[in-house]
Amino acid sequence: MRIAIKIGYDGSKFNGFAMQPRKKTVEGEILHTLKKTGIIENRKKAKFQYAARTDKGVNALGNVISFNCKGNALKVMQDIKDIWIMGYAYVDEHFNPRYCLSKTYRYYLYDDGFDFDTLKKAAMLFKGEHDFSYFARIDARNPIRKIDKIDIRKKGKIIKIDFEGKSFLWHQIRRIVAAIIKVGRGKANMEDILNALNKIKRVNFGIAPPENLVLLDVKYNFDFIPLLPEEIFIKKEFFIDALRVHRNK
Amino acid sequence: MRIAIKIGYDGSKFNGFAMQPRKKTVEGEILHTLKKTGIIENRKKAKFQYAARTDKGVNALGNVISFNCKGNALKVMQDIKDIWIMGYAYVDEHFNPRYCLSKTYRYYLYDDGFDFDTLKKAAMLFKGEHDFSYFARIDARNPIRKIDKIDIRKKGKIIKIDFEGKSFLWHQIRRIVAAIIKVGRGKANMEDILNALNKIKRVNFGIAPPENLVLLDVKYNFDFIPLLPEEIFIKKEFFIDALRVHRNK
Repeated sequence: MRIAIKIGYDGSKFNGFAMQPRKKTVEGEILHTLKKTGIIENRKKAKFQYAARTDKGVNALGNVISFNCKGNALKVMQDIKDIWIMGYAYVDEHFNPRYCLSKTYRYYLYDDGFDFDTLKKAAMLFKGEHDFSYFARIDARNPIRKIDKIDIRKKGKIIKIDFEGKSFLWHQIRRIVAAIIKVGRGKANMEDILNALNKIKRVNFGIAPPENLVLLDVKYNFDFIPLLPEEIFIKKEFFIDALRVHRNK
Repeated sequence: MRIAIKIGYDGSKFNGFAMQPRKKTVEGEILHTLKKTGIIENRKKAKFQYAARTDKGVNALGNVISFNCKGNALKVMQDIKDIWIMGYAYVDEHFNPRYCLSKTYRYYLYDDGFDFDTLKKAAMLFKGEHDFSYFARIDARNPIRKIDKIDIRKKGKIIKIDFEGKSFLWHQIRRIVAAIIKVGRGKANMEDILNALNKIKRVNFGIAPPENLVLLDVKYNFDFIPLLPEEIFIKKEFFIDALRVHRNK
């Protein structure tokens, strides 16, 4: 039996997704627990796979892992501290979460006086297919990627920028967001972005902090059965209350 | 110059408020930073004092610390990781945050089928002045305390219970909440609570988990100037989105 599990986490509680010796990582905690409880024997035999290896500090609400299991994998997963089980689906034995219809990343920006139209114009430059060499940490992979959708909107003090695409490069979203912010603050202009996107001239826009980035969802040609953890309901109220209690006093 | 600062924190990121050697605590982080930056020389000279020593795991949105300082204490405090600066006030040199008009604690309960009227009735038994010996970890202090206000309400999946009083005993709120939950689940009855409150018969109701408890606010005869950290705005949106994205799919 192969299961796909949609997981969430607060990136600040881990040293990233990918397993590392003697460090608390998302993958490390999951594999440790699955092996300890006999749900899987080892990573290879269980064909343990994931959708995205989020960096240190990056959050998730919809990363996906998959493995062959025996026993109540869901129950065991729900007992792992600091990992939220957002949903699950039983999948066929060949399912690899890496091959998805799309991934959506969301970046949260605190609005301390941005010109929203400028931000929006800057963000939209990244839509479509480009060579993102100057907006990523480049390894051996093809630097050409297609961003299918970019959505930017403002709600109160928060600006949310969504990026949807099949696959992204390492640091790509955070480097794109850093460029958008620089233009939004008047410290770079649209032409700088176009020059870097067309590889005419490299501009160092920097990299936006990981804690405001979240892997929001990964989509496939099937649905997950939602399973929202209690902690999320409580945390939501907690932060709503945080703003309510001390505002306007 | 003496300053009072209203602070918040996610209890899961610390080993409680009170300083301990080689452990990350709220007080430890604050004192370390204030000394390192020369804002204070040491705890004693600065008359560093606090409103409440929250236990390991307990959250705060309105704990209060106070100290004599030179330099930009606020700026230094805002740079401490995982501590939110919710507000500040300049106070007279004799101000001790322990002596307040009232403290409000809030407990968040996930509603998995409670009878709300029963919960409410159980909660209200604790209002007023009682000997809380059987609802606290007792030390040398007077076990008689007065709870001025108890408020319980339901919002969606979450039940919030607020307790307001001048001073509480160690573990008092969590032991009271454990009793309310037991009655709400039909595993104890009102009489058990009354018997324990009147010290007729000790009943072991257990202790509710710390992560759902928050020190919401501490009140004085002056107001704080509110200073809401960006992180709280972002976290609020993050948890609202968490429920939105994966629900009803």
